[in-house]
Amino acid sequence: MEFSGHPRLVRNAAESESEMTELVLPNDTNTLGNLLGGRLMHFIDLVGAMAAYRHGRTHVVTASMEHIDFIAPVHVGDLLILKSRVNRAFNTSMEVGVKVWVENTIAGTHCHVGSAYLTFVAVDSQGRRVPVPALRPETEDEKRRYEDAGRRREMRQLELERKRAAKAAELAKA
Amino acid sequence: MEFSGHPRLVRNAAESESEMTELVLPNDTNTLGNLLGGRLMHFIDLVGAMAAYRHGRTHVVTASMEHIDFIAPVHVGDLLILKSRVNRAFNTSMEVGVKVWVENTIAGTHCHVGSAYLTFVAVDSQGRRVPVPALRPETEDEKRRYEDAGRRREMRQLELERKRAAKAAELAKA
Amino acid sequence: MEFSGHPRLVRNAAESESEMTELVLPNDTNTLGNLLGGRLMHFIDLVGAMAAYRHGRTHVVTASMEHIDFIAPVHVGDLLILKSRVNRAFNTSMEVGVKVWVENTIAGTHCHVGSAYLTFVAVDSQGRRVPVPALRPETEDEKRRYEDAGRRREMRQLELERKRAAKAAELAKA
Amino acid sequence: MEFSGHPRLVRNAAESESEMTELVLPNDTNTLGNLLGGRLMHFIDLVGAMAAYRHGRTHVVTASMEHIDFIAPVHVGDLLILKSRVNRAFNTSMEVGVKVWVENTIAGTHCHVGSAYLTFVAVDSQGRRVPVPALRPETEDEKRRYEDAGRRREMRQLELERKRAAKAAELAKA
Amino acid sequence: MEFSGHPRLVRNAAESESEMTELVLPNDTNTLGNLLGGRLMHFIDLVGAMAAYRHGRTHVVTASMEHIDFIAPVHVGDLLILKSRVNRAFNTSMEVGVKVWVENTIAGTHCHVGSAYLTFVAVDSQGRRVPVPALRPETEDEKRRYEDAGRRREMRQLELERKRAAKAAELAKA
Amino acid sequence: MEFSGHPRLVRNAAESESEMTELVLPNDTNTLGNLLGGRLMHFIDLVGAMAAYRHGRTHVVTASMEHIDFIAPVHVGDLLILKSRVNRAFNTSMEVGVKVWVENTIAGTHCHVGSAYLTFVAVDSQGRRVPVPALRPETEDEKRRYEDAGRRREMRQLELERKRAAKAAELAKA
Repeated sequence: MEFSGHPRLVRNAAESESEMTELVLPNDTNTLGNLLGGRLMHFIDLVGAMAAYRHGRTHVVTASMEHIDFIAPVHVGDLLILKSRVNRAFNTSMEVGVKVWVENTIAGTHCHVGSAYLTFVAVDSQGRRVPVPALRPETEDEKRRYEDAGRRREMRQLELERKRAAKAAELAKA
Repeated sequence: MEFSGHPRLVRNAAESESEMTELVLPNDTNTLGNLLGGRLMHFIDLVGAMAAYRHGRTHVVTASMEHIDFIAPVHVGDLLILKSRVNRAFNTSMEVGVKVWVENTIAGTHCHVGSAYLTFVAVDSQGRRVPVPALRPETEDEKRRYEDAGRRREMRQLELERKRAAKAAELAKA
Repeated sequence: MEFSGHPRLVRNAAESESEMTELVLPNDTNTLGNLLGGRLMHFIDLVGAMAAYRHGRTHVVTASMEHIDFIAPVHVGDLLILKSRVNRAFNTSMEVGVKVWVENTIAGTHCHVGSAYLTFVAVDSQGRRVPVPALRPETEDEKRRYEDAGRRREMRQLELERKRAAKAAELAKA
Repeated sequence: MEFSGHPRLVRNAAESESEMTELVLPNDTNTLGNLLGGRLMHFIDLVGAMAAYRHGRTHVVTASMEHIDFIAPVHVGDLLILKSRVNRAFNTSMEVGVKVWVENTIAGTHCHVGSAYLTFVAVDSQGRRVPVPALRPETEDEKRRYEDAGRRREMRQLELERKRAAKAAELAKA
Repeated sequence: MEFSGHPRLVRNAAESESEMTELVLPNDTNTLGNLLGGRLMHFIDLVGAMAAYRHGRTHVVTASMEHIDFIAPVHVGDLLILKSRVNRAFNTSMEVGVKVWVENTIAGTHCHVGSAYLTFVAVDSQGRRVPVPALRPETEDEKRRYEDAGRRREMRQLELERKRAAKAAELAKA
Repeated sequence: MEFSGHPRLVRNAAESESEMTELVLPNDTNTLGNLLGGRLMHFIDLVGAMAAYRHGRTHVVTASMEHIDFIAPVHVGDLLILKSRVNRAFNTSMEVGVKVWVENTIAGTHCHVGSAYLTFVAVDSQGRRVPVPALRPETEDEKRRYEDAGRRREMRQLELERKRAAKAAELAKA
């Protein structure tokens, strides 16, 4: 895929920052009154898509999500706070970091529920991949996230090749 | 209702500040792809309840909503940004201000959709009214909102009395 | 906007009358089992849109909602009864009145929850305003509502001008 | 089950009459913009439950639904009108009749979509069957419905016995 | 309607087999924590449509549902298992059988909730009826279902004619 | 946590096997008619929870999800097929594997969308961890999955320790 001649823009990380707050209603919970894990993943995907959407200014589709741990339970009546920002833009994809907290407003507690890294692909209205602006990291923190995003991408590609090789070896044996 | 002896707390307006961002999905729209007015009111009520909840630190129920104009249409694919904060606390109720913007991320536009004032009542788990902390306005802006909230409350009470008098007059005639 | 030459129809208020009954399910409630205020506003908007839709026979969008008080709580298991009718039609907009009752069928109680006035604008499939038939009030009650709707509209316009003037004065000072 | 001594009340059919109007939103439709059959059955069950609830003044659960034909398609943007009333009360169950129309408000058409007969059982908060008031038919139409409901019940019981006998015969052969 | 010349395909019943499992969430239940009857009908319609869709390989709409009994209650936290397959294809319609079980996983119980027969009509993207492949029954069980589906169809048509004749007689009297 | 004396049961993998089929409706999609990534994660979590629920026969909560790639787009009107089974049980947790396919019934295509590994924790009705039966792998395939699940668990624990050490080092520097 080549986009030479295309006026490649550059944006910074702060421009993509997005925030969602959700009041956990009975509707979102299981029979114990706990937020369903899948419902939380749904919120994470939405807030992640917002950051990618703001950076890319084009339609986006979810391509992958990294390992995620749910380290604190979330109950009906809690406030769920989700923040997202683009860590790095590649040619037609973006890595977005999402962080989630739960606030039990009555008790006055606030704690970290989990963090996620998602990759979104920019597409046009026909679903074809389109290029996105580069991201220029500015603060120390942004530079660290930028480097980490590159490392995670390399690892994902190594893993993909390892799987392909394993499959080829298996087919050769058969 | 008297709560003398109750350790009346004081909080400032910034502590109640809440923010929601919603991606408008086909699910939320009418047959023209416009956000349903009632769906927007639902988001306004939720973000308003969050601010009241954070100020009162108790259950809250919606008591009233002031006149609201929807001055810009919202379409599927837009981002809806809602911000709320408590303007003033009365004995067992709070006035919350909500402001709504729509962001068309692809076009890069951002405009004001409407503003609303809601009153929430603080209740315990049995639904009985409970007192809330007072709100201490700090900035010029907060002081103006505090005064305005008082004026709106007086007008609501005058209006209520006018209605009662009209009803009484009507009953007297009959 | 001019629609001269358009065969302006006339309809009466009864033709627009609409009725909705909703069984309040756990799905619609907060953690106390009370109907969410925003969910109720959503029902009010829907039943209001039906009346406007029946009068205008064209797509409609919500333009504004007047002050609304929620004077009685609504619980899970209650029946919610909503009735609406057009009070008056203006050029391309209509004022609709909505009245809401709650019926606790088991206890055999029935009480008034609140009343609302909404304004809907008639639009074509491109979202452009289109004219609506006039409304001819017939009963005493319909005539009173017709007059009141005119008065509320004048007040909304005065309020709008007051706000514009205040903004202009503010800008002049700055 | 015996309820002798219980002060058996009597109600008439009109008291149970219920009405729902639903605006068909994109949310309720398949990929062709047609109302999903199952969504329509869901509305039929809700409006039927309302009538049974109003007659029995106790919790109700759906026990059966008779054959139903969907004789006209329903599209996004249509108004769906559903009316229900109890036809006859048995000891702890009630037969409810539901009739559904679709109104295409823009085209000004209104047609019959289908009719359904449902049986609801009255239960207490532990799910145990409880008796319901008898229904006294008053008009000619109500008397005809009352008789028909009795006939349908007999046919359901014959059918049930026929199935049981067939199963017994099958087991005897095996 | 004639489709001579159309390359009429034949499929067997197993190809249409579909299965859904639903975890009953608070969201799907009434105030007693029981699955709503209408919600269950909605699942039945969905799994039925899947079988018709797989047989017809075209859009399908629900045309009718036979009498259905709900013989066991379903509670929040239960697993609902639904299986469907096409029993017989007619010219442009298909009869689908659906069987529903409830599994209380913690108690280790599993029981039959009900069975339903639905008729779906195959349509193109404009909503016009289109022919579907014939179904060739293979096992003894499939042959029995095939015969039963034919008998049910005849009974539906007799019933339809009886209704029409009754209506005609009524009109003649008037 | 010690459960000595507890009659530890053993189950095999096939007993936990679960299957869901979902018809992708407009309701589940973004503005391009593509299934939302978060909606897919929600289905994956539900079908995963079913397998864990069937193995553990107790309440379960989602603890983590491994990296997941979405390798094929899913569109409105497609059938989504999800299968899950427990790969290995640890003391109070279970690793579940989920595999997802999309079937475009009209085109007759069927392809793999993605695979996921989730960890669920067994809890009682108070949310306290409870032990689950061991899983005895039987086929070659089940033994491979069992070994892989152990390896993934070790890696997750190493990663956790690495993070803790990094944090400790950071705190020591500060």
